[in-house]
Amino acid sequence: MAQLGEFELIARYFTRPVRRAALGVGDDCALLAVAPGMTLAVSSDMLVEGRHFVSTVAPERLGHKALAVNLSDLAACGARPLAFTLALALPSADEAFLAPFARGLLALADRHDCELVGGDTTRGPLTIAITVFGEVATGAALLRSGARPGDDVYVSGTLGDARLALEVLRGATAVEGAAFARVRRAMEEPRPRIALGLALVGIASSAIDVSDGLVGDLGHLLHRSGVAAVVDVDALPRSADLAAQAVAMQRKCLLAGGDDYELVFTAAVERRDAVAEAAAVAATTVTRIGRIESGSGLRFVAAAGRDVAAPAGSFDHFRTVAAPASS
Amino acid sequence: MAQLGEFELIARYFTRPVRRAALGVGDDCALLAVAPGMTLAVSSDMLVEGRHFVSTVAPERLGHKALAVNLSDLAACGARPLAFTLALALPSADEAFLAPFARGLLALADRHDCELVGGDTTRGPLTIAITVFGEVATGAALLRSGARPGDDVYVSGTLGDARLALEVLRGATAVEGAAFARVRRAMEEPRPRIALGLALVGIASSAIDVSDGLVGDLGHLLHRSGVAAVVDVDALPRSADLAAQAVAMQRKCLLAGGDDYELVFTAAVERRDAVAEAAAVAATTVTRIGRIESGSGLRFVAAAGRDVAAPAGSFDHFRTVAAPASS
Repeated sequence: MAQLGEFELIARYFTRPVRRAALGVGDDCALLAVAPGMTLAVSSDMLVEGRHFVSTVAPERLGHKALAVNLSDLAACGARPLAFTLALALPSADEAFLAPFARGLLALADRHDCELVGGDTTRGPLTIAITVFGEVATGAALLRSGARPGDDVYVSGTLGDARLALEVLRGATAVEGAAFARVRRAMEEPRPRIALGLALVGIASSAIDVSDGLVGDLGHLLHRSGVAAVVDVDALPRSADLAAQAVAMQRKCLLAGGDDYELVFTAAVERRDAVAEAAAVAATTVTRIGRIESGSGLRFVAAAGRDVAAPAGSFDHFRTVAAPASS
Repeated sequence: MAQLGEFELIARYFTRPVRRAALGVGDDCALLAVAPGMTLAVSSDMLVEGRHFVSTVAPERLGHKALAVNLSDLAACGARPLAFTLALALPSADEAFLAPFARGLLALADRHDCELVGGDTTRGPLTIAITVFGEVATGAALLRSGARPGDDVYVSGTLGDARLALEVLRGATAVEGAAFARVRRAMEEPRPRIALGLALVGIASSAIDVSDGLVGDLGHLLHRSGVAAVVDVDALPRSADLAAQAVAMQRKCLLAGGDDYELVFTAAVERRDAVAEAAAVAATTVTRIGRIESGSGLRFVAAAGRDVAAPAGSFDHFRTVAAPASS
């Protein structure tokens, strides 16, 4: 049997003509036009042990992260969190796991006033499936498809710390103890950029959250918008911990990282003040990293203006021609 | 570590004070008051290989069933299906599985005009998590909590065929080939009672779908309504295939079956004509099986009026004191 990539499989079997939904398969959130004036933003993610997290992760952090990755999708749409459902498969009804897991999960939920409204628990290999619901004024959602030539490209926070933690765990590099605790926390307890997403509604022309690495996710955005981009690798925001690494490791973590859960977004040049104001309102750092161009493809340059090759393998997602259906 | 039951764990860690939701954790669907006049009904279920289905089930039927069990929750609320999300973990990107799985899933979705609007696919032990969304006029949803003393108790279709198929697979009984195909189909391709649920809005005083067996699910309804019931086991509707079994096997399948996905509901005695009309509109058989009483507990009688003991173990769910949180 032919082995197909994840996005191709979804595109092949599950992409349907959009009917009721204002926006269906193919963006960060599914937006349901529930009633005049209000659109529901819905996103689902599934985390599987051994695939998305290791068995040694602290359950409290796992609970946090399981919801955080879903909230990050709402943030990328500029939606305000409302509620979520949780479907949970567990090898055993293990209180020592469930108590801290629920604590981490619900603490983040409370912080965003996002209510657990239902779900399902069953025995099985540890698997966490969350569907989150948010609301956004109809027509106002931030989409992947709105970037236009000339727009600035921005990213929130810093990139690459989660990937750096992974590289340390893999033994590919080393960081000292306190720094490792910081980058590990970035990997295990990402903070969804809800406030920034809300503040960018009406300002950003497009947005996506960085879950699979900047190259892949900005690639999705460019593909959906039908545009190209040039990004200055030296402008990419990074922590002091990452900046202490060799340049090759820095670039790998910045470009092909994954698990960043920052927002990458675009806005017209004349909205620079508005973007700065939104960032201030959201108390979130944003950095201008590049420019949208006409055409297709994603090009990286260093400050000197020379082209920079992206790390091997990091174009996997961008090469996907079919519209990605994963939320 | 203490081992807790599924419902207890959910009640313990995930039950929260209800705020935004018109109806939160604890009913078939979570109902979100999204906008004046309209409430969104949301339900999540997770199916795990080896737990909810065997590896030999035809993928097309598995796709059907994965959505059917969720639609059945909408039916029990009287909600009209709108959309669903799918989170799918697969051991490999196996086209021979995915193609028929998607076919079965989407055929049922199309039949109910229920649109796949998002989701997630990942590598992992075969696990299917679906969240389904429906709409129902605000205040009109069928709840578990509305049964009142004196109400009639009804069930749709027939009960027990799915359990009979399981008993055959376990070698506990035998049925001939064509009959086995029928009861196996009942187990693998349940038909959610959407039309009946819609027709019962404004008529039924309470409803639940039978997914864990009549004893357990009617028990949930009684608990939530704060009432008791007496049910005539001889009145329970059953197929000719089940009726051909020994009485003990019949009762086990009828009472402790599971996977029936029929609706059990209550209505005031003066609504008998309206119930019959709703059944006709929905082209679905409904059978009056008992009566709601004041007090608590679920009692079974045979036609002769003698008390009948429920099959061992079938009171597991009913004994649960905490409000069940599984949708």
